[in-house]
Amino acid sequence: MEKKCIGVDIGGTSVKLGLFREDGKLLLKWEVPTRKEDGGRYILEDVSASILSLLHEREIRAEDVIGVGMGVPGPVMPDGYVEVCVNLGWRDLNPQQELSKLLGGMLVRSGNDANVAALGEMWQGGGMGFTDIVMVTLGTGVGGGVIIDEKIVAGRHGLAGEIGHIHIREGETEHCNCGGVGCVEQIASATGIAREARRKMAAGDAPSALRAFGDQVTAKDVLDAAKAGDALALEVVELVGHYLGLALAQIAMTVDPQMFVIGGGVSRAGQFLIDIIDRSYQKYTPISQNKGVIGLAKLGNDAGIYGAARLVLD
Amino acid sequence: MEKKCIGVDIGGTSVKLGLFREDGKLLLKWEVPTRKEDGGRYILEDVSASILSLLHEREIRAEDVIGVGMGVPGPVMPDGYVEVCVNLGWRDLNPQQELSKLLGGMLVRSGNDANVAALGEMWQGGGMGFTDIVMVTLGTGVGGGVIIDEKIVAGRHGLAGEIGHIHIREGETEHCNCGGVGCVEQIASATGIAREARRKMAAGDAPSALRAFGDQVTAKDVLDAAKAGDALALEVVELVGHYLGLALAQIAMTVDPQMFVIGGGVSRAGQFLIDIIDRSYQKYTPISQNKGVIGLAKLGNDAGIYGAARLVLD
Repeated sequence: MEKKCIGVDIGGTSVKLGLFREDGKLLLKWEVPTRKEDGGRYILEDVSASILSLLHEREIRAEDVIGVGMGVPGPVMPDGYVEVCVNLGWRDLNPQQELSKLLGGMLVRSGNDANVAALGEMWQGGGMGFTDIVMVTLGTGVGGGVIIDEKIVAGRHGLAGEIGHIHIREGETEHCNCGGVGCVEQIASATGIAREARRKMAAGDAPSALRAFGDQVTAKDVLDAAKAGDALALEVVELVGHYLGLALAQIAMTVDPQMFVIGGGVSRAGQFLIDIIDRSYQKYTPISQNKGVIGLAKLGNDAGIYGAARLVLD
Repeated sequence: MEKKCIGVDIGGTSVKLGLFREDGKLLLKWEVPTRKEDGGRYILEDVSASILSLLHEREIRAEDVIGVGMGVPGPVMPDGYVEVCVNLGWRDLNPQQELSKLLGGMLVRSGNDANVAALGEMWQGGGMGFTDIVMVTLGTGVGGGVIIDEKIVAGRHGLAGEIGHIHIREGETEHCNCGGVGCVEQIASATGIAREARRKMAAGDAPSALRAFGDQVTAKDVLDAAKAGDALALEVVELVGHYLGLALAQIAMTVDPQMFVIGGGVSRAGQFLIDIIDRSYQKYTPISQNKGVIGLAKLGNDAGIYGAARLVLD
């Protein structure tokens, strides 16, 4: 029988699972709720029960499963150890070892969810065909993942790919969740974009379609209005693109990937946003024309299960 | 017989060579002049002749040499191809293949000299004992190298580790050699430090020991005066440390190494300089206390031969 692999993406609300062929074809995807009670102790049992039941239903023998990969929403040590995972209630646990035990010794590998999503985009998404990519996820926060030679660079303290916490902006006064001031996340996350729009509106009385939303303005409102030509909204998006392009330029001078893959809810603004980021990126990388390109992620919320499955294929 | 390896560091004036034991012990080092005439066509012949003569003298059989590694002062493609190497006059050449041919098919590997020096510092220098380091060389310019899992990250276009060309400073007006404005190299190189001192002297009339040097002031003068407590010199060094620490913080959020190794002539200022860089690095990495440390390089000009020899040990 054709070999299969399974990707598991553990989120705070639900666990996404996917059954894959070795060539990256997604055969089936499903979800189970994330039971966070009692320090998240039922999560792995639920995951293993769901996997075993699927294998049984589909008459897939354990020996035809190469392994199970798992994305965890927090720092994961190279051996799979998780000191603390706030979103799930986990503390002092090796979920990789636990899940393997629950699955009768099956190969299980794990990684941080943002890093794993980057691996997924490299394998079957926006970065397909490349071996070296950097993914930046623009969501409520800003996450990231660095892939070199088809492998995750997790960092020796789990901090690699923390693109959201690169200090980029002088003069910021509010603090970021990380304790810093002027992080990429404070400008380029959905939250950051909305805040920047509120600031611009408060700073003057230039007319703008955004004023109708008042303090309830969202990143989507800003991006839509910018596309429609609203001057104030466009100023906000230019500011976001300026700092994001600068951060990518700095990353390019460090690891020089083939591609920057931009994902997350904010990236639904599409090529319009990429073009604005790219102008700033080009400005800050005059050293060479021969360098990484910037493009869009393709797998959306499935990037995590793709990347998790890819973990067991090395 | 005990196996040996050879490291070759090709510079614009001389080629440094070293004979090593597998365990990293340097047995012998020597130099040959770099003959740059006729597009540098004699350089590899000189290198191979020198190596073959040494092996003959020392009665080392070719089969006891694991291989020869080579650092090249320019971008090197993964297969060893060099499109252009301005300092040597090379164009459209594969020096790795050429040298292997000249050495009767011996294993030859090559890499960019700054990257290779970083590998040397990881192997037997300031980063010894670590697998993931980032080296920053503060010389006439600012070079760098990124080592992950004991391997050079060269980048897909040869731009990885170009720490000197990270854009770091807003408001700079002069241009860097790379075409950019506000690069790390413009502030933290020996040239940059001297320029900053001239600017500070010109901007006011605060007394300073540096005024005796006038426009001839060097980075060493600045660092010496700062150590001796000269206020203006200290301002310059604080500025350099601020931007360098910020750049290291950004790199930490990208690849999260175990250690940043600071080398090059400017680093002779020692722990005094490291402490100033570290204050800024800490300020811009509040996200975690568990992160890479900053320390000094140890191999000086020999880093290149060490790293080159290490290339053939994988």
